Amino acid sequence: MNVIAELSIIPVGVGVSFSKYIAECENILQNKGLSTQLHAEGTNIEGEFDEVMDAIKHCVKSIHKLGAPRIITDIRLSTRTDKSETMNDKIHSVENRM
Amino acid sequence: MNVIAELSIIPVGVGVSFSKYIAECENILQNKGLSTQLHAEGTNIEGEFDEVMDAIKHCVKSIHKLGAPRIITDIRLSTRTDKSETMNDKIHSVENRM
Amino acid sequence: MNVIAELSIIPVGVGVSFSKYIAECENILQNKGLSTQLHAEGTNIEGEFDEVMDAIKHCVKSIHKLGAPRIITDIRLSTRTDKSETMNDKIHSVENRM
Amino acid sequence: MNVIAELSIIPVGVGVSFSKYIAECENILQNKGLSTQLHAEGTNIEGEFDEVMDAIKHCVKSIHKLGAPRIITDIRLSTRTDKSETMNDKIHSVENRM
Repeated sequence: MNVIAELSIIPVGVGVSFSKYIAECENILQNKGLSTQLHAEGTNIEGEFDEVMDAIKHCVKSIHKLGAPRIITDIRLSTRTDKSETMNDKIHSVENRM
Repeated sequence: MNVIAELSIIPVGVGVSFSKYIAECENILQNKGLSTQLHAEGTNIEGEFDEVMDAIKHCVKSIHKLGAPRIITDIRLSTRTDKSETMNDKIHSVENRM
Repeated sequence: MNVIAELSIIPVGVGVSFSKYIAECENILQNKGLSTQLHAEGTNIEGEFDEVMDAIKHCVKSIHKLGAPRIITDIRLSTRTDKSETMNDKIHSVENRM
Repeated sequence: MNVIAELSIIPVGVGVSFSKYIAECENILQNKGLSTQLHAEGTNIEGEFDEVMDAIKHCVKSIHKLGAPRIITDIRLSTRTDKSETMNDKIHSVENRM
């Protein structure tokens, strides 16, 4: 089962800047060979369900190890059985209607 | 690693009523012995990280099998390394400050 | 236009405990006479669209004044034109299918 | 008060394709002069708090008028009092740490 996921990780108890922690997770996602698109409010990820979820778990554990005592992790999963769709397909289908 | 999760599943392409699909997932969560609290906008779940994520995957697959061609699944994971905390602890800590 | 909203406020830069800030917002919502249901991952609110959004804005401003330099505010709005529905209706419609 | 918002609108009861409805909202946001970045899971918006919220309300009403009997609207608001920050600042601060 393929999935397009949006991931947003909020490390809590480490001050107001998240970039060090988000960068750690971006590197993990890329090392696992997942296709990602970073945006201002999160990271979109395309891949096989279990691989994506395993990478997210890896991110959470690594950010705790980096020193965050509390983490809020938001995940949105889009799954379809009627057709396959990429992240860019989703963007283009909107742009084509504007 | 324990987690408090919030799960919200939106089946798409099956009309405006979601209750049949949400009930299917509630039954899955309960059959797996997870502690849950259903509310108007989702279900909160308490358990071990892998067990919770495995149950959510089971829900998604079952709702596709029930006929939903597209599903949007929102998951919020709260993890802490500084202390253990239950769903009721979180509610009471707010109520005690009101 | 009526709305059922879910509100989750994450104050950033004030340590790992949110309860003081959430309680401030709960009091604001109640003082405005809105119907609310607090749960482990947020607060569900029932009311007229503008009144709910105005109360949420009031919460954000108050939590900044309490000392949070950064806030992440998550709002889910459920609106329907086909029928009116309460928070309890939503919960019962699922429970009746389980 | 300025805000960086993420908006995700899910029209319910109109089948599996959302692009027509999302495009309607994109046009509304642009006509109001707001700075936006469309991505695969939503639209990020930069602007003054009340203007952004007013535009979102306009989107919801227009999508109901286009025929969606039920809408789920997810909004994430990022507000800061310690510094001003743009959507691109947020992306670059992560990229600089990778």
